[in-house]
Amino acid sequence: MKLWQKEGVTTAEQIERFTVGRDREMDIYLAPFDVLGNLAHAQMLETIGLLTEQELNLLTDELKAIYKDIEAGDFVIEEGVEDVHSQVELLLTRTLGNVGKKIHSGRSRNDQVLVDLKLFTRDRLWQVAQATQRVFNRLIDRSEQHKNDLVPGYTHLQIAMPSSFGLWFGAYAEALSDDMLTLQTAYRLANRNPLGSGAGYGSSFPLDRTLTTDLLGFEGMHVNVVYAQMSRGKTEQTALTALAAIAATISRMAMDICLYNSQNFGFLTLPDALTTGSSIMPHKKNPDVAELLRAKTNRLKALPMEVTLVMSNLPSGYHRDMQLLKEILMPAFDELLDCLDIADFMLEHIQVKTNLLDDPKYDLLFSVERVNELVLSGVPFREAYQTVGKEIAEHTYNPPRTLHHTHEGSIGNLGNNLIVDHMAKALAGFGADRAQAAIDALLA
Amino acid sequence: MKLWQKEGVTTAEQIERFTVGRDREMDIYLAPFDVLGNLAHAQMLETIGLLTEQELNLLTDELKAIYKDIEAGDFVIEEGVEDVHSQVELLLTRTLGNVGKKIHSGRSRNDQVLVDLKLFTRDRLWQVAQATQRVFNRLIDRSEQHKNDLVPGYTHLQIAMPSSFGLWFGAYAEALSDDMLTLQTAYRLANRNPLGSGAGYGSSFPLDRTLTTDLLGFEGMHVNVVYAQMSRGKTEQTALTALAAIAATISRMAMDICLYNSQNFGFLTLPDALTTGSSIMPHKKNPDVAELLRAKTNRLKALPMEVTLVMSNLPSGYHRDMQLLKEILMPAFDELLDCLDIADFMLEHIQVKTNLLDDPKYDLLFSVERVNELVLSGVPFREAYQTVGKEIAEHTYNPPRTLHHTHEGSIGNLGNNLIVDHMAKALAGFGADRAQAAIDALLA
Amino acid sequence: MKLWQKEGVTTAEQIERFTVGRDREMDIYLAPFDVLGNLAHAQMLETIGLLTEQELNLLTDELKAIYKDIEAGDFVIEEGVEDVHSQVELLLTRTLGNVGKKIHSGRSRNDQVLVDLKLFTRDRLWQVAQATQRVFNRLIDRSEQHKNDLVPGYTHLQIAMPSSFGLWFGAYAEALSDDMLTLQTAYRLANRNPLGSGAGYGSSFPLDRTLTTDLLGFEGMHVNVVYAQMSRGKTEQTALTALAAIAATISRMAMDICLYNSQNFGFLTLPDALTTGSSIMPHKKNPDVAELLRAKTNRLKALPMEVTLVMSNLPSGYHRDMQLLKEILMPAFDELLDCLDIADFMLEHIQVKTNLLDDPKYDLLFSVERVNELVLSGVPFREAYQTVGKEIAEHTYNPPRTLHHTHEGSIGNLGNNLIVDHMAKALAGFGADRAQAAIDALLA
Amino acid sequence: MKLWQKEGVTTAEQIERFTVGRDREMDIYLAPFDVLGNLAHAQMLETIGLLTEQELNLLTDELKAIYKDIEAGDFVIEEGVEDVHSQVELLLTRTLGNVGKKIHSGRSRNDQVLVDLKLFTRDRLWQVAQATQRVFNRLIDRSEQHKNDLVPGYTHLQIAMPSSFGLWFGAYAEALSDDMLTLQTAYRLANRNPLGSGAGYGSSFPLDRTLTTDLLGFEGMHVNVVYAQMSRGKTEQTALTALAAIAATISRMAMDICLYNSQNFGFLTLPDALTTGSSIMPHKKNPDVAELLRAKTNRLKALPMEVTLVMSNLPSGYHRDMQLLKEILMPAFDELLDCLDIADFMLEHIQVKTNLLDDPKYDLLFSVERVNELVLSGVPFREAYQTVGKEIAEHTYNPPRTLHHTHEGSIGNLGNNLIVDHMAKALAGFGADRAQAAIDALLA
Repeated sequence: MKLWQKEGVTTAEQIERFTVGRDREMDIYLAPFDVLGNLAHAQMLETIGLLTEQELNLLTDELKAIYKDIEAGDFVIEEGVEDVHSQVELLLTRTLGNVGKKIHSGRSRNDQVLVDLKLFTRDRLWQVAQATQRVFNRLIDRSEQHKNDLVPGYTHLQIAMPSSFGLWFGAYAEALSDDMLTLQTAYRLANRNPLGSGAGYGSSFPLDRTLTTDLLGFEGMHVNVVYAQMSRGKTEQTALTALAAIAATISRMAMDICLYNSQNFGFLTLPDALTTGSSIMPHKKNPDVAELLRAKTNRLKALPMEVTLVMSNLPSGYHRDMQLLKEILMPAFDELLDCLDIADFMLEHIQVKTNLLDDPKYDLLFSVERVNELVLSGVPFREAYQTVGKEIAEHTYNPPRTLHHTHEGSIGNLGNNLIVDHMAKALAGFGADRAQAAIDALLA
Repeated sequence: MKLWQKEGVTTAEQIERFTVGRDREMDIYLAPFDVLGNLAHAQMLETIGLLTEQELNLLTDELKAIYKDIEAGDFVIEEGVEDVHSQVELLLTRTLGNVGKKIHSGRSRNDQVLVDLKLFTRDRLWQVAQATQRVFNRLIDRSEQHKNDLVPGYTHLQIAMPSSFGLWFGAYAEALSDDMLTLQTAYRLANRNPLGSGAGYGSSFPLDRTLTTDLLGFEGMHVNVVYAQMSRGKTEQTALTALAAIAATISRMAMDICLYNSQNFGFLTLPDALTTGSSIMPHKKNPDVAELLRAKTNRLKALPMEVTLVMSNLPSGYHRDMQLLKEILMPAFDELLDCLDIADFMLEHIQVKTNLLDDPKYDLLFSVERVNELVLSGVPFREAYQTVGKEIAEHTYNPPRTLHHTHEGSIGNLGNNLIVDHMAKALAGFGADRAQAAIDALLA
Repeated sequence: MKLWQKEGVTTAEQIERFTVGRDREMDIYLAPFDVLGNLAHAQMLETIGLLTEQELNLLTDELKAIYKDIEAGDFVIEEGVEDVHSQVELLLTRTLGNVGKKIHSGRSRNDQVLVDLKLFTRDRLWQVAQATQRVFNRLIDRSEQHKNDLVPGYTHLQIAMPSSFGLWFGAYAEALSDDMLTLQTAYRLANRNPLGSGAGYGSSFPLDRTLTTDLLGFEGMHVNVVYAQMSRGKTEQTALTALAAIAATISRMAMDICLYNSQNFGFLTLPDALTTGSSIMPHKKNPDVAELLRAKTNRLKALPMEVTLVMSNLPSGYHRDMQLLKEILMPAFDELLDCLDIADFMLEHIQVKTNLLDDPKYDLLFSVERVNELVLSGVPFREAYQTVGKEIAEHTYNPPRTLHHTHEGSIGNLGNNLIVDHMAKALAGFGADRAQAAIDALLA
Repeated sequence: MKLWQKEGVTTAEQIERFTVGRDREMDIYLAPFDVLGNLAHAQMLETIGLLTEQELNLLTDELKAIYKDIEAGDFVIEEGVEDVHSQVELLLTRTLGNVGKKIHSGRSRNDQVLVDLKLFTRDRLWQVAQATQRVFNRLIDRSEQHKNDLVPGYTHLQIAMPSSFGLWFGAYAEALSDDMLTLQTAYRLANRNPLGSGAGYGSSFPLDRTLTTDLLGFEGMHVNVVYAQMSRGKTEQTALTALAAIAATISRMAMDICLYNSQNFGFLTLPDALTTGSSIMPHKKNPDVAELLRAKTNRLKALPMEVTLVMSNLPSGYHRDMQLLKEILMPAFDELLDCLDIADFMLEHIQVKTNLLDDPKYDLLFSVERVNELVLSGVPFREAYQTVGKEIAEHTYNPPRTLHHTHEGSIGNLGNNLIVDHMAKALAGFGADRAQAAIDALLA
């Protein structure tokens, strides 16, 4: 029986299925965080006299036991139990009777869901940050390894100027370091405490929200209770936007890989583990994994819009529509983490071709060098530009193959240390240590 | 072992999982249609001499047996088998040996997937058409039932002019009849035969594509083989756009229901089966089902954009990215069909309040009637408008409560018969009978 | 002074600017259609006795004069006049006095806007259809011209099998012929009469909506007056979806052109008029026009989502939000028509390279031909496939360069006549002649 | 003549118009920032010996003069001049001859556009931050002013629990303070120096990129030159995402206002300046301005997707497609700034109704208070909940109208000081002072 179910009202099975949807599946993600929220709420209730010390101890022990079960994979939402919150409460009342019921004082299902979602999202965003850092490190390694391996640089898909694999790998590393700023903002929005906001209008119990904020390691609280409820949607949107930013970087890299792997470019070789054959063409080694990486990350870019569509033009106050946000948000983390793992594996095993620029079809890459030679010899830029254009047209152009790029971020001076530093600062800005310390203390 | 797997190449398990994704789950949807495609392809191969009559008979009998297994729910994609196409081929070769292998002549995995997807999509679009018609019929019924029950009409969310539940229900019915035109287009794009296009560049076998077009009951064929391949993405996009159109209609209706169910409007009552309580507020009867209906249909509106994002800026020719479209397309049908069932149930059981306009707060709804009275008595419109504005300001306004709306589509003349006719024509335009007759003949 | 403005209320200039937005600019698009709507409405008012025959004649003459001014480019919305509807009414009353005012009987600003938008959209969709047909014809011409010019066919951006420019041009032609079905649906939704629906709740005047439907050449009417108002949003959405479908086809073609124009492919040459140089690289001939074609058409794909975002979760009934849809819809036609013109010019002048497949790097394109040779000699397909794989690995593979593709839609049998037929049928389905005949009659 | 134009090549006027698009209009936005970039680049060139001190002085004086012209509104892009960069260079060479040409050394049009866009975006994001703060301050003021004015709180659009205008105004203030974090990230991504990246592959001149970074007041540089180019798209996307976040907050507030302004709620009154009448209903006072605020902010939410669609699956390296991003980005700032001004005006003048909860239809809002009374008297929560449910059903329920909400963020303790503090910290994190100081120094 559901908590809100009144007598004499039956709910048809089809309605039930429609209403619950994939919610029980989603709620399993929330289980450990629900226990953490309960632990903090119980401690707070004791300080304001709504639980005795003895009751608090009983609840704390039981909640820690449930947490262990969750970690061991032994936690299930039983048949007929509506959601994870009801399941945890059921376990508590089964063991502790009325004491188990008292933990719901000063709390609504709404702020319980909210705090679980905040803790879950904070946790997963940090996992994404760490996985992104692994890909970042891989890119920096490959960049250093191939800093002298030149590759044509394109603009408009036309050969333009010399580039290098050092630059190419490093560019995606730096892209991820900027994405980390977006991720940090998402983390900070997830890192605010909604507990105590009730159903969006607070409680007449003298709750101590500052205490639960500290106990759960939040950076601060969503102060205004109406806003705490309105943060639903915004939290998901911001998190998914950050995931989409990383996805966009990975997807563009995957596009490059698919293109450079084409015989018409031939800049890269993918290992056999990352290619597949064709059912009718015996010569094929297709980059399916890179293509799926591209497709999956491209698809992730749609998710912020899904949240927008569910939330648009809903007046303030809770609406059941928001339940659906769980299905949009939660699997997205798994999907992106999976993509980051595969990207890391791909970047580890990708082989780059060397001496690519010896091919005469790339001679024109050096035309700007020729212009610059003339400029350095005193010819004004616009004249030098015209002269080289004429040399090319009249086939007197002779490519100066020695490169002299020395400024920050150029072929001869990649500046990867600056990029590593940028990434490190972005990661430090999360304040993830504080969150972890609080969780450890709650479970100690 | 996969069909394309060459010796000496091992594929890591993680890569495998990433590559396969939810594809095996999606492929179960395709199983019956894969058999149908095989039946037609085999018949055609026999006519061009690539199968003997005896081989055709063996294959046909075996394929029909597989079809029966699928219908009975006994079909599975075995461990280690890559997809539904391989599974069907495996079953054929297991029973028939080399004859089973010969059916792959003149065909690529690509056009096999394409034809399966076309047949699947065509089938599901017709299911959606029928489910939409059920909701349509319900709306027409309720419209007729409540044609005399007045309700305030709003513009700008301000009370405006008298409306009726007859108009309100009928409006959504007519919306669905227009959505049916969009659905018909999606059906017609799905109803074109790609078989014979191979991997997008055709076959050097003398295939008879007109024959398979007829055998599978298609309206026509995707002629150009490069385009047949390019129709991937377009077919999904068009189908999902049609689903989104219906979803948008349902979602707007659900918004109205949630609003009209609010105590501040109080125009509707939802049955207990469609409401839920609150964990802290004992007085609540929340319209959760209507809210989830709104949320789910709103979310469906994002799906065309997901397809767009996966396909954008991909050059012509097949890319593995397209596999992901299956996960976007296929579950969407189940989701919308579910929503249509719930909408139908809700519309059946919703109760409307009567005599709403007796409440004096709705007196101003009749101000246009008062203007029109004056106009009919010879006062120019703009003067009459100013006069009534003055009456209202000076509290001398007396609402003329008798309505005289007689024109097509107005309160006194709903015109539902015209709407029913529009719907019937839209449905007839699908040409679904022809498709069904062909399928029946193939399986006879 | 605005029609709705009551005395003693001043509107700040900033609010005014915010409220009007780009609406006056948009309304210029509507001017001729507003006159047409007025002509039909006036004729109908006379049949139900709300205008005398003399009044009708006066109004008709004046309206035709205004129409001529619009055609001559002499129509402006005067300073202080709110919109096109007020301007037309002002011109009528300026000349005809009270008779000019009487035309507003039985009509609201809302259904006046609606009918104007329907007529405008119907008109522009037909222009798009004709422009699309021009591009289609160009593609068919180039396809026939280059049916023997082979080009590598790709899957996964890997060289796969032989294709031809005949197939490549023809594929995009057929894509457009399918897009025409989507355009036709948009046309049919735009081709329904909302006039008489008032502000969404009809009129107590005995309007003859069937008459105005016929006079304006509509295929039918939006019957239910509440739905007629709700068709706002749906009409725009459906029209923009059709534009987006065509845009997607053009954008993909532009991507191919940019890629094939890259030195690494070198399949195409763009005329100088369609390329630009670089400010620092004197050798560059960049395909900027193709890139902008790609970008502009890609951007158009977002517009249906803009409409969705404005309309989502708005309850039924008019909201001023809908005014903004004009800014989304109207310029989109100009943008796409511009893109279609440029695409046509580009397709006219593009030069294709010949004898591309003589390059040995494309030898593997013929591997399937080699497999099929073996199959036709009696080897089962799967064995032949393994054999050719081995030949390639052991460098004994000898590409059989003669192609034997004869089936419908393949290199040797493009089937362009079937595609032309499909296009012609799609165009005929619009019923544009009837609309044109009605307009001609109104203005006669 | 364009810089890249070679002799003998004519460009048709239509192509020209298509290619330039709205670019000249957009470039006017960039003019002051182009001058700033030139000033910094010139200073740097002098330090590496590519300009003499005298040349630098000449250029600096002339550039400052151009800046003054821009500020005075006297700057135009002359007929036949391609863009703002060419116009500035033209003005320099017109006055200074060859010295004017030398400033283009070590720079490409690409990084010139990039640095202008960064400076423009940084500037506008700070303007948005300040305008948002004004709205924030207004909301805090109104929240304090109305902290004792109660209003029904809703969940599921059902009356739920007591709320207050103090909470309602404060909630949107806090929402904006969280949006400010997203805006800060956008600012920080815009606040990185791309100058020196050339066309995306750097320069062989010994540029000092650290110097230009400091001179322009950037927080840091986009180190890797390939990434500097790739930041195009990401910068726009992140900026528009931040604008969309603020827009979403405003749009939701506008929805509340439209709803609460409906006669069925009647919680708010809008001043006459913000309402309009109806052309047929003399009693109407429609909240058009709030509706357009809602529509415009809803539309802004689509813009990140437009950027995504233009950029998706473009390989690395510059493409002309990116030019179109200017049209998406630049007008969006004006649009949002306009919306923020109107929102501020609306919030200033909106009138709230008092004593709303005296109406007996809101009695049930106090049911949780009644439950809590029982809990505080010792009844377990679940029992108290059942008891109150029974009281309501049996009409013995007596609402306890005295509220006791004391915890942080609740009716009796709004915590606006905490929210103000959160906002102040977010604003301080931009580091806008540093940017302003650098600009001032450059122009001194």
